[in-house]
Amino acid sequence: MNEIRPPARALPADLADRLRAALPEGTVLTEATDREAYLLEERSLYRGQAPIVLRPRSTGEVAAAVRVCAEAGAPIVPQGGNTGLVGGTVTAAHEVLLSLGRMNGIEEVDPLNFTMTVGAGCILADIQQAAERAGRLFPLSLGAQGSAQIGGNLASNAGGINVLRYGNARDLVLGLEVVLADGRVWNGLRALHKDNTGYALKHLFVGSEGTLGIITRAVLKLFPRLTDRVVAFCALRDPADALTLLSLARDRAGEAVTAFELMSELTVEIVQRHAGGQDPMRERHPWYALIELAGSGHDGTLRPVLEGILEEAFERGTLADAVLAESSAQYAALWRLREGIPEAQKKEGGSIKHDVSVPVSRIPAFLRRAGEAAAEALPGVRVCAFGHLGDGNIHYNLTQPMGMEKAAFLAQWERMNAIVHDIVVELGGSISAEHGIGLLKAGELRRYKDPVEMDLMHRLRDALDPGRLLNPGKMLG
Amino acid sequence: MNEIRPPARALPADLADRLRAALPEGTVLTEATDREAYLLEERSLYRGQAPIVLRPRSTGEVAAAVRVCAEAGAPIVPQGGNTGLVGGTVTAAHEVLLSLGRMNGIEEVDPLNFTMTVGAGCILADIQQAAERAGRLFPLSLGAQGSAQIGGNLASNAGGINVLRYGNARDLVLGLEVVLADGRVWNGLRALHKDNTGYALKHLFVGSEGTLGIITRAVLKLFPRLTDRVVAFCALRDPADALTLLSLARDRAGEAVTAFELMSELTVEIVQRHAGGQDPMRERHPWYALIELAGSGHDGTLRPVLEGILEEAFERGTLADAVLAESSAQYAALWRLREGIPEAQKKEGGSIKHDVSVPVSRIPAFLRRAGEAAAEALPGVRVCAFGHLGDGNIHYNLTQPMGMEKAAFLAQWERMNAIVHDIVVELGGSISAEHGIGLLKAGELRRYKDPVEMDLMHRLRDALDPGRLLNPGKMLG
Repeated sequence: MNEIRPPARALPADLADRLRAALPEGTVLTEATDREAYLLEERSLYRGQAPIVLRPRSTGEVAAAVRVCAEAGAPIVPQGGNTGLVGGTVTAAHEVLLSLGRMNGIEEVDPLNFTMTVGAGCILADIQQAAERAGRLFPLSLGAQGSAQIGGNLASNAGGINVLRYGNARDLVLGLEVVLADGRVWNGLRALHKDNTGYALKHLFVGSEGTLGIITRAVLKLFPRLTDRVVAFCALRDPADALTLLSLARDRAGEAVTAFELMSELTVEIVQRHAGGQDPMRERHPWYALIELAGSGHDGTLRPVLEGILEEAFERGTLADAVLAESSAQYAALWRLREGIPEAQKKEGGSIKHDVSVPVSRIPAFLRRAGEAAAEALPGVRVCAFGHLGDGNIHYNLTQPMGMEKAAFLAQWERMNAIVHDIVVELGGSISAEHGIGLLKAGELRRYKDPVEMDLMHRLRDALDPGRLLNPGKMLG
Repeated sequence: MNEIRPPARALPADLADRLRAALPEGTVLTEATDREAYLLEERSLYRGQAPIVLRPRSTGEVAAAVRVCAEAGAPIVPQGGNTGLVGGTVTAAHEVLLSLGRMNGIEEVDPLNFTMTVGAGCILADIQQAAERAGRLFPLSLGAQGSAQIGGNLASNAGGINVLRYGNARDLVLGLEVVLADGRVWNGLRALHKDNTGYALKHLFVGSEGTLGIITRAVLKLFPRLTDRVVAFCALRDPADALTLLSLARDRAGEAVTAFELMSELTVEIVQRHAGGQDPMRERHPWYALIELAGSGHDGTLRPVLEGILEEAFERGTLADAVLAESSAQYAALWRLREGIPEAQKKEGGSIKHDVSVPVSRIPAFLRRAGEAAAEALPGVRVCAFGHLGDGNIHYNLTQPMGMEKAAFLAQWERMNAIVHDIVVELGGSISAEHGIGLLKAGELRRYKDPVEMDLMHRLRDALDPGRLLNPGKMLG
């Protein structure tokens, strides 16, 4: 595990006492056993070092904590469910960790306004369920939703499987409350679907990874429930056919296309081997796509639409094979082929990962070029590519060659990253489509980002957090 | 007509010469007759005074113009189609007007990526048509679309009639190119549906009304075409019933609800009187709603869905009457009842306007309270309220009492604004839902905005335009 940067300046010896004086009992944790859960992350890529962990229960307590830390010059790292993938909440030994997990109230659900007001510490799955109980949908959906917190989802502008239809986390929030670097509170907790009175502060905080302010509460946007769902698993010769199929599906079903997940051959093989997936087809194919249509109409309306799309695709020669779920068990089994990939990947061995996007129309070129370059750089490497084709977002993961040592393979991480990311950038793409920058990609951000854009971001950072006390070292480095 | 602030500092006498030296012939206009079209606005609320009008053809020319002006300390007011409603592009005599109208190229349409790259000066209607030709939809739609330019639409985060389904202008743009206050160019012209590599600069420039940078090009987001449309005109007893109907419609038809426009009785009366509208009902009703469902499926799919919604609403006692368009002529006639309102209003006499939003669930309370307060403050005043119920956005306009002098009525503008806006703010609403702040509401913004939010906005302004040369006096004042 990596320990990050040496302390820039030790925390004042009396900081914990000053924080205890300002906050209720039980809010300031300094015992190693109490802090442990906040310093470890599931996959153990990083290990945090914060000697102080704060667990405020209210916006006032967050503000009080920030004021004490600001006076002491102590850096603060906000943390949600600690499920991020880029080390965005790792702490050094001179940093204070502030967990939002106790601010987990669902404060108001307004079905007529299609909104819900929640604390930053609310678990994503709890929010989904509260929306469901109110006859509404909160569409943000991702693998870690059982422990991810909405504050972290917003701070990292989380993506997931429903972006094609509903957008990223930033598109699902109407208002925010944010504690600023100096301890003041910005009350932007508006439940308005339209408001053109000034700069889009909300959008600046969303996706800023805790470097501009600490999100404490949010007004989320809800949608009509989806009462009709139908899913098909399609076999394809190549990614260009997948694009043709996607375009056809959107022409025929419009916004009802809720998910369009592309998967390379290897993903199906390893999900079957390690994660309880069952390939429903007789033969193996080089590429697969999982299409889901969903709508709010009467149950059964979308099935003939999807059948029509598949028929048309067969007639045009776009589809090699397709299976339509006939029951909820089959629906779950087809989704399992997609959802089991991360687990299966881990069991298959080492994986060098890339969360990239390019314009959708350039996906075939990207997959071809990256595949050729990876094979040349590391013969035998296996492409475990999957992701959200409709968003142009591919999790382009490279699985270790059969028989290679895991450590020797993972030692190639930076070299392979550079090969793949160079191609992505040449194609006008992004080196982080949905996971963010954090600590993991801060160096690459500096390498690939236009200097004018870096300068603008530093100016904004200086405008809102001149002391650079909020999550230092993350994103901008 | 109002002439705005006296010159802060006269422009250098040789500025036009310096600009001519840096720009191609025909780009720098100083003759009064040449400048006139840029200084007048259609409804003549303001009159611009800029002694120099620039008409650059490229990003490089915009950047060159900005550099010369920045060196000279000359303020610059960017202008698109000059169709805004809040004086956002009015110029004082010490300001240079920069028109983007010549940067009107449609540079690329990528149907597979669902994107289009355009110059800031592209006319909105031209963009809609180019999307249509490519088998796609660009859903931004508003009254001024025949002359509004996309750069202005983005700078003001325009709304319009499709926000319920597709969002505001900011939701319809993937990438931007912006000339900064110092003449540098930010190339954020990315055609990516997902990109989590840093702060949301795009969202900061969108809606900033030209005070943070000059938008020169944009990558717009396209959608599947709508091939099936059905519209109904509904009579309602009160706004609460309209809310119930909206909720029912979204439950039954989900995202297919493309428009839900609420209209007070007076709007139908005056559209019939002045703007060629025909009330399709036998009796007059206190409130009306126009519902449109639209989708990408086969033509005719949505009609039974809308019929089902209306039947269910009748059974529940929500609807007083309803008419469903049976032909494209009827479709146009029903929409005419909504679209004719602005024209009819002008002909009916003076109008004191409010472009406000509140949480959708509070619309009935807002209409009741504002109606009572307006009637008490100005007996006989007539409520011409209409707008986008699904967004909580009402154009709450007050028409002069029968027999009152127009000038005497309009003299009540600020007093009535204060009455209506106080209620809006008490209900957690916005004093500018879609038209923006510009010059017209800069004073009210200072009055109503939280000081912390004003401070944040000023910090951002200072970070990106420390000399305050871009559109000074607008928005933040």
